[in-house]
Amino acid sequence: MSERFSFTLLKADGAARRGEFVAPHGRVQTPAFMPVGTQGSVKGLTPEVVRGTGAEIVLGNTYHLMLRPGAERVAELGGLHTFMQWPLPILTDSGGFQVMSLSSLRKLSERGVTFRSHLDGAMHELSPERSIEIQALLGADISMQLDECLRLPATREDIDRAMQLSLRWAERSKKAFEGRAREGYALFGIVQGGDDIPLRQQSARELVEMDFQGYAIGGLAVGEPQDVMLKVVEETTPVLPTERPRYLMGVGTPHDMLEAVARGVDMFDCVMPTRNGRHGMAFTCFGPLNLANARHAADPRPLDEQSPHPTARTYSRAYLHHLVKANEILGAVLLSTINIAYYETLMAGMREAIAAGRFADFRSTTIAGWEQGDIPAL
Amino acid sequence: MSERFSFTLLKADGAARRGEFVAPHGRVQTPAFMPVGTQGSVKGLTPEVVRGTGAEIVLGNTYHLMLRPGAERVAELGGLHTFMQWPLPILTDSGGFQVMSLSSLRKLSERGVTFRSHLDGAMHELSPERSIEIQALLGADISMQLDECLRLPATREDIDRAMQLSLRWAERSKKAFEGRAREGYALFGIVQGGDDIPLRQQSARELVEMDFQGYAIGGLAVGEPQDVMLKVVEETTPVLPTERPRYLMGVGTPHDMLEAVARGVDMFDCVMPTRNGRHGMAFTCFGPLNLANARHAADPRPLDEQSPHPTARTYSRAYLHHLVKANEILGAVLLSTINIAYYETLMAGMREAIAAGRFADFRSTTIAGWEQGDIPAL
Repeated sequence: MSERFSFTLLKADGAARRGEFVAPHGRVQTPAFMPVGTQGSVKGLTPEVVRGTGAEIVLGNTYHLMLRPGAERVAELGGLHTFMQWPLPILTDSGGFQVMSLSSLRKLSERGVTFRSHLDGAMHELSPERSIEIQALLGADISMQLDECLRLPATREDIDRAMQLSLRWAERSKKAFEGRAREGYALFGIVQGGDDIPLRQQSARELVEMDFQGYAIGGLAVGEPQDVMLKVVEETTPVLPTERPRYLMGVGTPHDMLEAVARGVDMFDCVMPTRNGRHGMAFTCFGPLNLANARHAADPRPLDEQSPHPTARTYSRAYLHHLVKANEILGAVLLSTINIAYYETLMAGMREAIAAGRFADFRSTTIAGWEQGDIPAL
Repeated sequence: MSERFSFTLLKADGAARRGEFVAPHGRVQTPAFMPVGTQGSVKGLTPEVVRGTGAEIVLGNTYHLMLRPGAERVAELGGLHTFMQWPLPILTDSGGFQVMSLSSLRKLSERGVTFRSHLDGAMHELSPERSIEIQALLGADISMQLDECLRLPATREDIDRAMQLSLRWAERSKKAFEGRAREGYALFGIVQGGDDIPLRQQSARELVEMDFQGYAIGGLAVGEPQDVMLKVVEETTPVLPTERPRYLMGVGTPHDMLEAVARGVDMFDCVMPTRNGRHGMAFTCFGPLNLANARHAADPRPLDEQSPHPTARTYSRAYLHHLVKANEILGAVLLSTINIAYYETLMAGMREAIAAGRFADFRSTTIAGWEQGDIPAL
């Protein structure tokens, strides 16, 4: 459990990459999807259920956990792995993104960001150093640097300023991280620069010079069109070293992930499978289905007979429809399970296709399946 | 799967009974606790999780299922076992109790009860014959006769009238049930009579003359003091035949069940373990604990290290406290699991104690554990 953090590129197929990284709590096959365990739980699912979907790593949110129950508390209780009973790797974000999206009265300075908690109104400060400290207290296998996320669209001037600040914070994050170096644990830098390609590339180059164990592309999936996001990804990944993992933060739909892998991304996280599951939506190889729709009410077929996951093969669409209409917790639980399992199945399919050198085929077949839509009702 | 419904009394210890019944979908050891699957799901829990608690039978609610998704719909989809993917026995109630407690504009007549759905305001009718038909469509291993439940306190005159009506409905229910007789399926009669012992005993005697496969004691746990309930149970069970199971409907707390088993009851159902679990309350061998209480916030111990169920042994009290405070679905899921597991463990303990002829010891030891309260905090 104390191997050095390492990433191995096993195979490339075009820009798509099949890899593996070794973290203190285990190995992770890439491309990888990380279910989001916002407040110390992947919403509604036990760790056993999450593991059963094929997930090998989950994400924890620094912002939520620092406010409740508190990073020091989690550390006293043995760290986040023990706290939430998740024995495999955990990546934590830096808290910066959610300070921007959830808290009020934010004040940004060179030093860091002060903000009012959305829970109780108490004032908190998050600096690059404190963010690293919190992530170490949580015991994250992979920590993220604190960065400043802008909403798009933004002016070039604002984007440049935020990107430069994020670079200085990257440096401070790295120094803080190395000051408490623990064998095998990793820190990722985050490329910023909005939708401005030269700024993105400058950010990437400067981060690479600092030498992180992995690189994230942040500040995307914040409202920009998909083609803008993919363009940024496409122009950024070539600047990143091939021998380090690349993580596209907060992304996305199955199609986003397929296209981002095609452009050299290795890791993803997103609340969509759980959030949409709680709202009655299922991700399937036929595309998304709204289980609240009356057409499912009498349909005895499972969601997807071909799914490797039993939950998608076992319960009828009629039953899932009923649970959604009756607002039963079990509906949220089953659809969240099915959705994460679909995301993980898609990742496994991509990994297999890249390894076999047939990623382009897999990509077009998968998209065709989504476009063809649901199999005809009985 | 087509054996005749049968109950075997394996051992008696005082009035407490250790038995077993055979239903079309399996064997059930008694005393038995039936988790409540109100709308076709035990709230928040997959069938695998429910089975993992030790439950061998669940209860389904006719009122909820007739309104949504509808009994005919469930039948088209293969019956309730297939619909909810619960392969073991199911007992359904008659719908009468919930018509009284949930619907508006009820109108009771000799023929049955008409009522307005609490979901969409549509008018429905429930007669003894329709209730039996619905329960047959659902595919219940054990059906219950339609009865009239009064709230207590009530006048002797009202209690007598409702009891007499319930007896006539028992007769009609039995006739309807036998008209569609299916090998191995059972119909239970329901003793009514409020808190009036002579009326209770008259009700029991007349039902026994009609000859049901089992007998329920209904109309209790509706607000009366525990000693009143236990007195009714104590004076009713001796009138019931020893070779048939006895079911105390809608009961109750662990203490209620322990005392009712001591008075000859074999079966129970109650929403308390799931409902209280959703509100942060855990049932344990130390008595009930409120996980929202701040004293659990830093407590690394599991809820109950001696529990045979892993969920009660695995997660720390601090984590459960966190989930409850953060209003995470997983808190409801884990506490519902823990609570049903506690109920099932209590039943298993009672079965073992009766078999060994030491029920009195088990009863006093168990009560002493609850009274002693939680083990001291660290």
